Amino acid sequence: MAMGTKETIFSIEHAAIRFGPGALEDVGEEARTLGLTRVLLVTDARIRRLPFFETVRTSLHRAGVEAVVFDRTEVEPTDVSMLEAARAATEARVDGFISLGGGSVMDTAKAANLFSTWPAEFLSYVAAPLGESRAVPGPLKPHIACPTTFGTGAENTGIAIFDVTAAKVKTGIVSRRIRPTLGILDPTVLTHLPARVVAANGFDVLSHAMESFSAKPYTARQRPPLPSQRPMTQGANPYSAVPCLEAIRLTSRNLVAAVTEGDPEARSQLMFAGLLAGIGFGNSGCHLPHAMSYPVAKLVRSFRPEEWGEGKPLVPHGMAVAVNAPAALRWLARAAPERFAPIARALEGPGRDDHPGDTIAGVLLGLMRQTGIPVNLAQLGFDEKDIGTLAKGALEQKRLVENFPGELSHTDMEAIFREGLFQGESAS
Amino acid sequence: MAMGTKETIFSIEHAAIRFGPGALEDVGEEARTLGLTRVLLVTDARIRRLPFFETVRTSLHRAGVEAVVFDRTEVEPTDVSMLEAARAATEARVDGFISLGGGSVMDTAKAANLFSTWPAEFLSYVAAPLGESRAVPGPLKPHIACPTTFGTGAENTGIAIFDVTAAKVKTGIVSRRIRPTLGILDPTVLTHLPARVVAANGFDVLSHAMESFSAKPYTARQRPPLPSQRPMTQGANPYSAVPCLEAIRLTSRNLVAAVTEGDPEARSQLMFAGLLAGIGFGNSGCHLPHAMSYPVAKLVRSFRPEEWGEGKPLVPHGMAVAVNAPAALRWLARAAPERFAPIARALEGPGRDDHPGDTIAGVLLGLMRQTGIPVNLAQLGFDEKDIGTLAKGALEQKRLVENFPGELSHTDMEAIFREGLFQGESAS
Ligand SMILES: [Fe+2]
Ligand SMILES: [Fe+2]
Repeated sequence: MAMGTKETIFSIEHAAIRFGPGALEDVGEEARTLGLTRVLLVTDARIRRLPFFETVRTSLHRAGVEAVVFDRTEVEPTDVSMLEAARAATEARVDGFISLGGGSVMDTAKAANLFSTWPAEFLSYVAAPLGESRAVPGPLKPHIACPTTFGTGAENTGIAIFDVTAAKVKTGIVSRRIRPTLGILDPTVLTHLPARVVAANGFDVLSHAMESFSAKPYTARQRPPLPSQRPMTQGANPYSAVPCLEAIRLTSRNLVAAVTEGDPEARSQLMFAGLLAGIGFGNSGCHLPHAMSYPVAKLVRSFRPEEWGEGKPLVPHGMAVAVNAPAALRWLARAAPERFAPIARALEGPGRDDHPGDTIAGVLLGLMRQTGIPVNLAQLGFDEKDIGTLAKGALEQKRLVENFPGELSHTDMEAIFREGLFQGESAS
Repeated sequence: MAMGTKETIFSIEHAAIRFGPGALEDVGEEARTLGLTRVLLVTDARIRRLPFFETVRTSLHRAGVEAVVFDRTEVEPTDVSMLEAARAATEARVDGFISLGGGSVMDTAKAANLFSTWPAEFLSYVAAPLGESRAVPGPLKPHIACPTTFGTGAENTGIAIFDVTAAKVKTGIVSRRIRPTLGILDPTVLTHLPARVVAANGFDVLSHAMESFSAKPYTARQRPPLPSQRPMTQGANPYSAVPCLEAIRLTSRNLVAAVTEGDPEARSQLMFAGLLAGIGFGNSGCHLPHAMSYPVAKLVRSFRPEEWGEGKPLVPHGMAVAVNAPAALRWLARAAPERFAPIARALEGPGRDDHPGDTIAGVLLGLMRQTGIPVNLAQLGFDEKDIGTLAKGALEQKRLVENFPGELSHTDMEAIFREGLFQGESAS
C-alpha cells in the first residue's frame, strides 16, 4: 500500500452477455429477471424504423416491462443530447435502461443512467483536464445494452465518448459504474450492415485486440493508495491477453468473407471477436493507433465514404484507426519485438518472429486492400502539411498516451504519421 | 421461442476479479466500495490461525467495515453447518459476506447469503431430485470470495456443494444468483500449501478446463421457453473454449515446478489457470471425470494421503478427478477426435492429431507420476468388485451426465472405470 511501489494487482470486470441469433427476443424477460418494470429504451431515429426495434419493443411488452422510447440520440453524441436523455429518464421515472443501437446509443444510455441516478453538473464526472473526474458515488440502475452493429465493445466498457459542445472537443466519462449490466449480442442484426461498415468495424476490433494485448504492462504503473483509484485503462495483463489473441485470430480469418461475401457466419464470428476484443480492451486499454485516430477524425477536410450517405466530411472510427495501425505497430514492435510476436503469429500462423512489426503491417495492409478501405492518410485527403497538427493531436490523448508501450516524442509521432501518409500504395 | 427448437444462444457470466500479490490487503476498501458496512466473515478454524486472516480483518477494520466472524465451516459442508452460517448472518444483520478459505468456505458463504436473504426450507433451492430446484427469487447481498487455495473455481461459479445429513448424499444448489460479486485472488496464500495439495488441485484445474472445453455443445440442448430457465451448465460454447485452452497450456507447463520445487511463480500461474478454468466451467460445465469422481470419493474404504493428516478414509477431490480423467477422456475422444485434438495440442504443442485421446491420457499419467499422486483406482484401494457400484454412482450425477459429449451405457461406464483400475503402472 506504500506510495511509490509498482502495481502488483490487475482487475477483471465484465458485463454479463447473451450471444446468439434470436437473443433480442429475450430482452423483455432479461429485463424482468433484473427486476425492471419501466425502462428508458434509448435508440435513434434510424434504428427505430428497423425491424429489430419492434422485436425489442414486443419482447418488453410481453414481459410486462413498460418502455418509454428516447430516439433523439445523435450520431456524434454531445453533452446536450446526453443530458436530454437523462432528463427523459428522470421525467419517466424509469428503473432501468435498454439501449438499442451503435456505440453512440449505448454511450448515451450510460450517461442518461449516470446523470439521472446521480445528478450533477455535466463536467463533474468528465475526464480531466476538461472535467473534474469526480468518482461516481454509487451503483447505477441496470442497463441492458443491445448493439445493432459490432466492434465498439461499448456493451462491455465503462466508457462513454461524446463532444462537449461549448469546448468543441471530444472527451469522455470513464468509470466502472457506467459499464452496462448485460449485453445482448444478436448477430442477425448484422445482415443490414453495408460491406464497408463491416470492414471499418472489423479493423476497429482488430486494433482493439492488438493494442490491448501490446499495451504498457499493468506492472509498470504505480500502485494507487486505494484500489478504487486504479485506472480502468490498467494496461496489458495476463487476463486480457487471452481473449485478445483469439479476437485477432478470428477477425483476420473472417474479415474478408464477412465484407466481400456478406457471409452471415463470418459476420457472426466478427461480432464474437468484437466481444472478445471488448473484454480485452475493457480490462486493458488501447493506445497508439486509437490516439492517432482522434486527430485524423477531427481534422478531415474532404473525405466521406460513399456508404455513409450525404453529409459533412467524415472518417469513420474504424477507418481512422486502421489507417494508423500499420505504421504505429511497426514502430512500436521495433523496440519490443517479443511483445508483438504473438500478434504476428495470431494473424499469420507460426514462423515469423524476426520482424513481427513488418508481418503485422503487411497483413493489415493486405486486409485493407482486400476489403476496399483507404490504406493511407493521403487517400483520406491529408498531406505533409498536416503532420505536425496530427502529431500534436495524438499526444493530447492523455489516457491513451499513458498506455503506450514506450515513450514517443513529438518528432517520433510525426515520423509515424509520415510513414502512414503513402503506405500501401503498391502491393508491398 | 417455440418449444422443441434447439438452443441458439449462450450466456457469459462472471464475478469481478482482483488478482495479484497483496490483493488481500484491499479487501476492506473493496467492501467499502460495494457499500458494505457490516459483513459476515466466513472462514474455518484452521484458517483463522493463519496470518492472512489477520490481513483481511485488519483491512476491513481500516476501511471502517465491521466484521462478524463465523469460523464453524466444516471441511465437508452440510445442510446443518450452512444453515448455522445463515443464522449467524441473520442474527448479526450483515449487509454482505466475505469468505476466506477453500471451496467449502466459499460455498458456505454462498448458502448463508442465500438463506439469510431469501429464507426458505433448506431443500427448496436444492437441485432436484432431492430438492425442489426452486428459483432464487431475487439478487443476494454482495459477497467477496477470497480463496486461500486454488483451483476450485468457486469464486466464479453459482454452485454450492454439500452433504444433506439426513439423506447422506452429496448435492448442491445451482443458481446464477449465488455467484460471488467479487473474487480476490492473492497468490501469496499459496506458499503454505503442501506439495500434494498443489498437485491435487492442479489436476482439478486441468480437468475443469478439459471437460468444459469438450462438453456437449450448447446447441445440442433444447431452447427453454424462458431465458432464465437456461441451465448454468450450458455446455461447450465459443466463449468458454478460449480460457479453457489457455488454462490447459498454463497448468501443464507449470504443474511440476509448482509441486516439486514449490516455485512461487509457477504456483501463481496455477492460480491464474484455475481462475481461467473456473471462468470456463462456470460458463460451460464439467462432465465425465467429475461425474466419476463422486462415487470414488464416496466409496473409498482405506486410502488417505499422508499430507491430509489423521482422519477417516479420504480421496481429495482433485485426486478423485485425476485418476478418472485418462480413461474417460480417451474413451470420449475415440468417438469425436476433432473435439479433443485442441486439448492434445494445448497439452503438448502441435503435431499429434491422430489419436488425441491417447496423447491426453499419456500426458496426464506422466504428470501424475511426476507429481506423486495415485495413477489408478487400485492405488486408491478399489478393485474389480467395485466397478458396478462406481458406474452406477457416476451415472446418477444427472447435471454432469447431461453435459457428457455422447451417450454412455452402464456397460460403457464400467469399461471406463475398469480401464482406470490398473492404468499407468508401467511407464506406458
Ligand atoms: Fe475503437
Ligand atoms: Fe473440480
